[in-house]
Amino acid sequence: MNIRLYHARILTMEKDRPVFRGEVWVKNEKIVYVAEDEELKRELGPDFVKISWDLEIDCRENLLMPGFKDAHTHSAMTFLRSYVDDVPLQKWLNEKVFPLEAKLTEEDIYHLTRLAVLEYLTSGITAIFDMYVKPDATARACLDMGMRCVLNSGLNNFTSSIEQVEEEYLKWNRKNSLISYQLGFHAEYTCSRELLYQLAQLSHKYRAPVYTHLSETARETQECKARYGMTPAVFLDSMGLFAFGGGCYHCVYMSEADLDVFRRRRLFAVTNPASNMKMASGVAPVAEMIRTKIPVAIGTDGPASNNCLDMFREMFLVTGLSKLKENDAASLDAEQVLHMATVQGAKAMRLAKSDVLAKGKYADMILLDLHQPNMQPIHNIPKNIVYSGSKSNVAMTMINGKILYRDGHFNVGEDPERIYAECARIVRRLTGQEDA
Amino acid sequence: MNIRLYHARILTMEKDRPVFRGEVWVKNEKIVYVAEDEELKRELGPDFVKISWDLEIDCRENLLMPGFKDAHTHSAMTFLRSYVDDVPLQKWLNEKVFPLEAKLTEEDIYHLTRLAVLEYLTSGITAIFDMYVKPDATARACLDMGMRCVLNSGLNNFTSSIEQVEEEYLKWNRKNSLISYQLGFHAEYTCSRELLYQLAQLSHKYRAPVYTHLSETARETQECKARYGMTPAVFLDSMGLFAFGGGCYHCVYMSEADLDVFRRRRLFAVTNPASNMKMASGVAPVAEMIRTKIPVAIGTDGPASNNCLDMFREMFLVTGLSKLKENDAASLDAEQVLHMATVQGAKAMRLAKSDVLAKGKYADMILLDLHQPNMQPIHNIPKNIVYSGSKSNVAMTMINGKILYRDGHFNVGEDPERIYAECARIVRRLTGQEDA
Repeated sequence: MNIRLYHARILTMEKDRPVFRGEVWVKNEKIVYVAEDEELKRELGPDFVKISWDLEIDCRENLLMPGFKDAHTHSAMTFLRSYVDDVPLQKWLNEKVFPLEAKLTEEDIYHLTRLAVLEYLTSGITAIFDMYVKPDATARACLDMGMRCVLNSGLNNFTSSIEQVEEEYLKWNRKNSLISYQLGFHAEYTCSRELLYQLAQLSHKYRAPVYTHLSETARETQECKARYGMTPAVFLDSMGLFAFGGGCYHCVYMSEADLDVFRRRRLFAVTNPASNMKMASGVAPVAEMIRTKIPVAIGTDGPASNNCLDMFREMFLVTGLSKLKENDAASLDAEQVLHMATVQGAKAMRLAKSDVLAKGKYADMILLDLHQPNMQPIHNIPKNIVYSGSKSNVAMTMINGKILYRDGHFNVGEDPERIYAECARIVRRLTGQEDA
Repeated sequence: MNIRLYHARILTMEKDRPVFRGEVWVKNEKIVYVAEDEELKRELGPDFVKISWDLEIDCRENLLMPGFKDAHTHSAMTFLRSYVDDVPLQKWLNEKVFPLEAKLTEEDIYHLTRLAVLEYLTSGITAIFDMYVKPDATARACLDMGMRCVLNSGLNNFTSSIEQVEEEYLKWNRKNSLISYQLGFHAEYTCSRELLYQLAQLSHKYRAPVYTHLSETARETQECKARYGMTPAVFLDSMGLFAFGGGCYHCVYMSEADLDVFRRRRLFAVTNPASNMKMASGVAPVAEMIRTKIPVAIGTDGPASNNCLDMFREMFLVTGLSKLKENDAASLDAEQVLHMATVQGAKAMRLAKSDVLAKGKYADMILLDLHQPNMQPIHNIPKNIVYSGSKSNVAMTMINGKILYRDGHFNVGEDPERIYAECARIVRRLTGQEDA
């Protein structure tokens, strides 16, 4: 499939390259050409339009850019959206989430993940880093719909074993370019020291990075200190878990020693501002991390705690909460935030070929509609996206060279209404509630 | 014009009335009937479908509710969107905003306001409380497009006089049901004591409420104390400005004495969370105000400081920032926030007939698309709206019985592209910049 996207504004997200007008050409799953209009004329003359295209898209001066990378989520938790809200994290997990999750079947997770994938597409998210039980179901949903997904094992004392994790790791890292798998565990407070030790060994065996929830609440860090005499990052590092890098989700309560572990191990901090607000967990020290060279990516967290899967909301919150926390209106400007939501996300997820728009990269890109009132006037496109952007600006989402969402219509091999109905059925079974 | 909206879920926003399935009938600018399907069958039998409708809309089980009230904005500031960002309020006002504003013509304000109106419609905002220079231009833009607007004089030492304000007050309170006018002044720090005294007299003459920016930054309250020995609310009240009620925008730094003035004078606090974040001004004590019976409405503030006009973003921020500030995940639930964004907004703006969906009220309503992934599953519709909602859910915006926006298309008597082009031309003239 040869696709030509022309009459575009283009933001490749390559370093120091501003928006230009030009074209992007796609062949099968890859980008084969990105060029300014001037360069095209000079290099190819008028003849290139005679190339036989399968599809030509007039972008109408709208913006092509890399899709957003949702670097932390639990997709299948769609079933809990607006079901449990307004309670703090530990109560929420123990009394509400875990009991219902225990009832989930693999088939449930498949359908509930598909609902989340629809939503990612509406928000221009082209890859997700998904930690959930039964990752085979998540992978199957993403494969069936065309979503790029990095699975992340949520190893803990209750729902899986180190043997399962190793088996999944091997299986999903050789199967398909859309799916990969990274080692991970749920959190320090849900894993025994023995289990963590086993995971560290596995990480050393494959020289693989490890990811986990970390320092999301003050209570979590206090309990870890009481248990092990160390803050979570320091303790986990002492177990050898970060010898090959990786990253941590949330990172709200970070000591100097924790930040030092991040720098030394080159760990990614994945910030989840909406979830941290809604759960009253706190505000991560993102600006401080950026200043001291800790790489930061952005995640929505799951739809039960957020409650939506919207990278525009997260981007505004990253800068807005940082401005408040630092008492500085200049803190974290729009370009820094866009970088986190695209390039840094791809790096955190080890998706080296999905970071920018350039020849040889996967065609994971979005078209943002600038012909809408919230994008006018066009003083500064990165600022427009981060400060004014919304799901309603996503005109197209392409993953692996395939257009999965365009002008409000999905092309994912299934009617959304059937997915909604399937999920409603699951929710009724799990909760005993009827639709409102 | 008779319009029947059927197959709807309906949230009237009347007290303690949950979502039900039914119909809303509109005749000219008013709602003439709101009924549950069961009631309709019982009262009217099957014959009502023989009424000759000018338009029948199948709502497909989507949600009809009152439109949002944007209780504080400066619409015409669209020209500054993404032009000046990442600087604190006073610097932003003095070095960036005021010099450019001085160049604005009435014609500029007309076009720039029209751009904002397009955006309000995409966000389901059906009435705005607009403070800006040259309110005649704002009124003309709103009238031409069909937007409901309450003008609010931004009296200050530089751009208008008390005589002008009185003239505008009389003119716009008798002219048209879409436009009304409330007395106001820019802020304590931009008005002389003499000018404030004149406005207080005018307020007494017409027994009229008064509105103003108040305690937006710590610096503002400190300077007021240095100048007058009182915090802003206490000082302004001592001038007699709030004898007939009114309200204040921002209200971030509130002393006990300030809160007491609000309770005694029954003033509305209009919170502007996105603007207060982006300017690093702070977080208003909304939960505390609600607990102590101070009515709170929500405003976007102008597009220069926010930068978008999106009530969904504001609603999430009202609850999210409150949860953080109070360190309580239960702070300000979704129903309270929806109430602020609709009923309380209407009350703050003195739009008694635009608050809820009921017989005799103005047909100012929106249809929210629940057939989108971010609104599924349907456990709890108010929570879905506040925690997961987005502009992309706004399927229709009706004001005064007229459908101004539907399925992404505007019906405002002008092609949006012409408005964008006009605004781009103005921006080039004012800033000397070219489009990105």
